[in-house]
Amino acid sequence: MKIFRTIEEQQNYSKNEKCENIKIALVPTMGFLHEGHLSLIDKAKEHADKIIVSIFVNPTQFGEGEDYKDYPRDERKDLEVLREKNVDAVFIPEVSEMYPEGFRTFCEVGELSNKYCGESRPAHFRGVTTVVLKLFNITKPDIAVFGEKDYQQYIIIKKMTEDLNLPIEIIPSPIIREGDGLALSSRNIYLEKEERIEATVIYESLVMARKMIDEGEYEVNLLKGKMNELIKSKKHARIDYIEFVDSRTLEKVEKVENPTRILVGVWIGKARLIDNMEIKP
Amino acid sequence: MKIFRTIEEQQNYSKNEKCENIKIALVPTMGFLHEGHLSLIDKAKEHADKIIVSIFVNPTQFGEGEDYKDYPRDERKDLEVLREKNVDAVFIPEVSEMYPEGFRTFCEVGELSNKYCGESRPAHFRGVTTVVLKLFNITKPDIAVFGEKDYQQYIIIKKMTEDLNLPIEIIPSPIIREGDGLALSSRNIYLEKEERIEATVIYESLVMARKMIDEGEYEVNLLKGKMNELIKSKKHARIDYIEFVDSRTLEKVEKVENPTRILVGVWIGKARLIDNMEIKP
Repeated sequence: MKIFRTIEEQQNYSKNEKCENIKIALVPTMGFLHEGHLSLIDKAKEHADKIIVSIFVNPTQFGEGEDYKDYPRDERKDLEVLREKNVDAVFIPEVSEMYPEGFRTFCEVGELSNKYCGESRPAHFRGVTTVVLKLFNITKPDIAVFGEKDYQQYIIIKKMTEDLNLPIEIIPSPIIREGDGLALSSRNIYLEKEERIEATVIYESLVMARKMIDEGEYEVNLLKGKMNELIKSKKHARIDYIEFVDSRTLEKVEKVENPTRILVGVWIGKARLIDNMEIKP
Repeated sequence: MKIFRTIEEQQNYSKNEKCENIKIALVPTMGFLHEGHLSLIDKAKEHADKIIVSIFVNPTQFGEGEDYKDYPRDERKDLEVLREKNVDAVFIPEVSEMYPEGFRTFCEVGELSNKYCGESRPAHFRGVTTVVLKLFNITKPDIAVFGEKDYQQYIIIKKMTEDLNLPIEIIPSPIIREGDGLALSSRNIYLEKEERIEATVIYESLVMARKMIDEGEYEVNLLKGKMNELIKSKKHARIDYIEFVDSRTLEKVEKVENPTRILVGVWIGKARLIDNMEIKP
């Protein structure tokens, strides 16, 4: 497994592989890898010959007062896991390599970036799209895999890729959950014991909504109300947002008529967790 | 000479050429080609094997009330000229090909885009960087040539290319002038006869400043005052800006001590013309 810490090394590697007509996949991560990340790698292997995983805790996607400094990191373990997983190359740059002094170029996907997660994290998606665009230019993948847990992010990256005419296929990969339903996230490590137990309410609220829809309830206001109630019944939970949106455009819907995503953001203690579920009525 | 009107055709062409280890140059233009553009092509030929010229009057870089609709176009003559010039491929898309409905991704080079030309044309450089980024992704060049007449644009594109880790060399090409010093521009066609005569004052003011500097005058305020006076003496001239800036960073300077660019924007009648000059004290 190759390990590249400079942009130049990674670009040379990708350039050489590219000309041999090999399909390259990129799996971008912020490290502290869990089963969710490993499922992205498996998905990448279905579509490509060479797998590049990037590990970079990207400062520009964290707002002031957010958990950039505290975000969990474990480089040694990550590299071990990736070696076992037979990844071909890992790109793991320093911040100063990605953002040298005087850096000032940003890429933004209008509207889509300002709502839902973007509302409570104003510059978040601008940081995400910018770093992903850089990673695309550095690793030159034919495909890139993004987890559906960050559904808004997946849609935004897909839109950016189309709008900028990048010849890269963006492939979604399903959410991986703990046995009790909690979606895997590096941030789950922030949860205290009692909070960890309560955190399952996020998934439970999604399952409840799906059940109600299956039974014929299509009014979003009513469905949101019920989810709200259930989540609020937990001592450590504070709702950031619950929204029902068109799965493709992320426009809010008032009735569940077409393919719909339920998006949820909830604070549990000091962890801000997100989850979502596809509804095909 | 190949003529491509769709992104797919152009991308396929570039992809195929690329893998044969050939150096590709892009010369982006808005058409209505003049000697200035042809000099960019000559410059490109010094550095590359295959020359792609793009012709696209880019709506997103024109502000409201600007001359997007009136901007001169002559596709037939442009293609004739490029054929004579032995260009390899021309990319000449429709607006709907470059900006399909729902397009919403923009790329911006912070600060640099808001001053000088960017002050009187607020979204101008955002439109320029976005379309150039798209053109880069579509044509996949190894080098791209930009005229120094649009000096701020050249610096901004260079910065974007570095910041986004695009493996493209940005090459500047010197300003081409009429016999009386007026910098070539497609917009010169807007000038009435009397205005055309007066328009030489822009270049004259730059030459005057250079002469004063050669003679030991380094105070920018004084130099700007003299240029102002000279330009204002012309009936049809209205100054947009005169600035002395660091040639590399575009930061304003108060004294001419290091390599400096004098940047000028002047309205002559309904034509907004720009020009600039390098000073190496």
